[in-house]
Amino acid sequence: MTVGTLVLLRHGESEWNAKNLFTGWVDVDLNAKGEAEARRGGELLKEHGLLPDVVHTSVLRRAIRTSELALHAADRHWIAVRRSWRLNERHYGALQGKNKKETLDAYGEEQFMLWRRSYDTPPPPIEDGDEWSQIGDPRYATLPPELAPRTECLKDVVQRMLPYWYDGIVPDLLAGRTVLVTAHGNSLRALVKHLDQISDEAIAKLNIPTGIPLRYDLGADLRPTVAGGTYLDPEAAKEAAAAVANQGK
Amino acid sequence: MTVGTLVLLRHGESEWNAKNLFTGWVDVDLNAKGEAEARRGGELLKEHGLLPDVVHTSVLRRAIRTSELALHAADRHWIAVRRSWRLNERHYGALQGKNKKETLDAYGEEQFMLWRRSYDTPPPPIEDGDEWSQIGDPRYATLPPELAPRTECLKDVVQRMLPYWYDGIVPDLLAGRTVLVTAHGNSLRALVKHLDQISDEAIAKLNIPTGIPLRYDLGADLRPTVAGGTYLDPEAAKEAAAAVANQGK
Repeated sequence: MTVGTLVLLRHGESEWNAKNLFTGWVDVDLNAKGEAEARRGGELLKEHGLLPDVVHTSVLRRAIRTSELALHAADRHWIAVRRSWRLNERHYGALQGKNKKETLDAYGEEQFMLWRRSYDTPPPPIEDGDEWSQIGDPRYATLPPELAPRTECLKDVVQRMLPYWYDGIVPDLLAGRTVLVTAHGNSLRALVKHLDQISDEAIAKLNIPTGIPLRYDLGADLRPTVAGGTYLDPEAAKEAAAAVANQGK
Repeated sequence: MTVGTLVLLRHGESEWNAKNLFTGWVDVDLNAKGEAEARRGGELLKEHGLLPDVVHTSVLRRAIRTSELALHAADRHWIAVRRSWRLNERHYGALQGKNKKETLDAYGEEQFMLWRRSYDTPPPPIEDGDEWSQIGDPRYATLPPELAPRTECLKDVVQRMLPYWYDGIVPDLLAGRTVLVTAHGNSLRALVKHLDQISDEAIAKLNIPTGIPLRYDLGADLRPTVAGGTYLDPEAAKEAAAAVANQGK
């Protein structure tokens, strides 16, 4: 049995990335730089002949637009599309809409880094009346309350993402397809943690750069044949990962 | 049983509409006017509270981009997406890539109108080696040769579109969903002919304007409760339909 190829693509810069705000489930758009990153990601797919047969996205605009721009650039706009809230960014709880620098100054580096990078410490939950709460958003109307997060740590993201990996993405891979997953920093870290069996401690240091397709070839056990996969532009990936690590500084 | 609401949206102006070329299955993009039309279509959906739960598109770029631009404008970018070649524009055979005015001058008004508007006279088939043939296009690679058209009349479009209406679109309507179909002048004429039971003669005079959502409320028999449906902007629809009828003149 030939397992298909998995390609991960983190959305490019959004209006709030550039403003240094915690975004989470707030549905902000890409900015012009993010649009250019998405198109470049699509061009890389085309240059490498790595042509997706199906795309999976979150239900957030910045990932959806990244997939659209990349697929148009790769002439693969016509492929099958699947979406799931389970690929959404980590819900940042009460930090959603807050400035990262101000949060760092207000709570100190230790608490800040615990919320940003610890595996199992979620930020305080968001209030239902908070302007950045997703209560009442029609795209989550069919989620029972116990599934709709009010805050998440990375461990929570792994737990809610994995059912979609097994039930939504793996069947496409087992059908031999080239599968593009266009999502977010933390939902992709959650997936990479699972694939590469990264420890709860080591995942804190792993950053996924935006806009650069990351290719995983998988064995019959659905584990990577090359640990960590292969970026289509390794030099740019290295520089970008360093930049992500410095956010909020 | 409550049947869902059907909304038809014809893509806006493309690079070749503006150049007055026969397009058919050639995968040209929208031009700036077409992009604006698509956004306006989405704003109309939003203004009327007619919010799609699922979108069906052809596999051609101008319809796909129209759906993307309209859904982003309506804040419904996150809904389910389905695509089928059965919603494609009519295949224009050997006329694909030809100028409409030059074709009119070369063949005369009678032959020209027969190809454009007769129900059952297709243009000459396209040669496999023609630069505008779809032979080798990966999106049609799984179509057996007897399904892949080399030319089509409107009757052919009705026949290849209807299976997708019954098997792809009707189940979404029976689930009570608001269903957006973003497609082309002739695939939408084929669908409207079926819905409103328009005769082979009368369909020749029916033009569907670009970029203006057309709402159909359906009974349990999946036939319109109001013949012809309702345009969300009836004044603009009237003007636009008149303009379409004058194409090639």
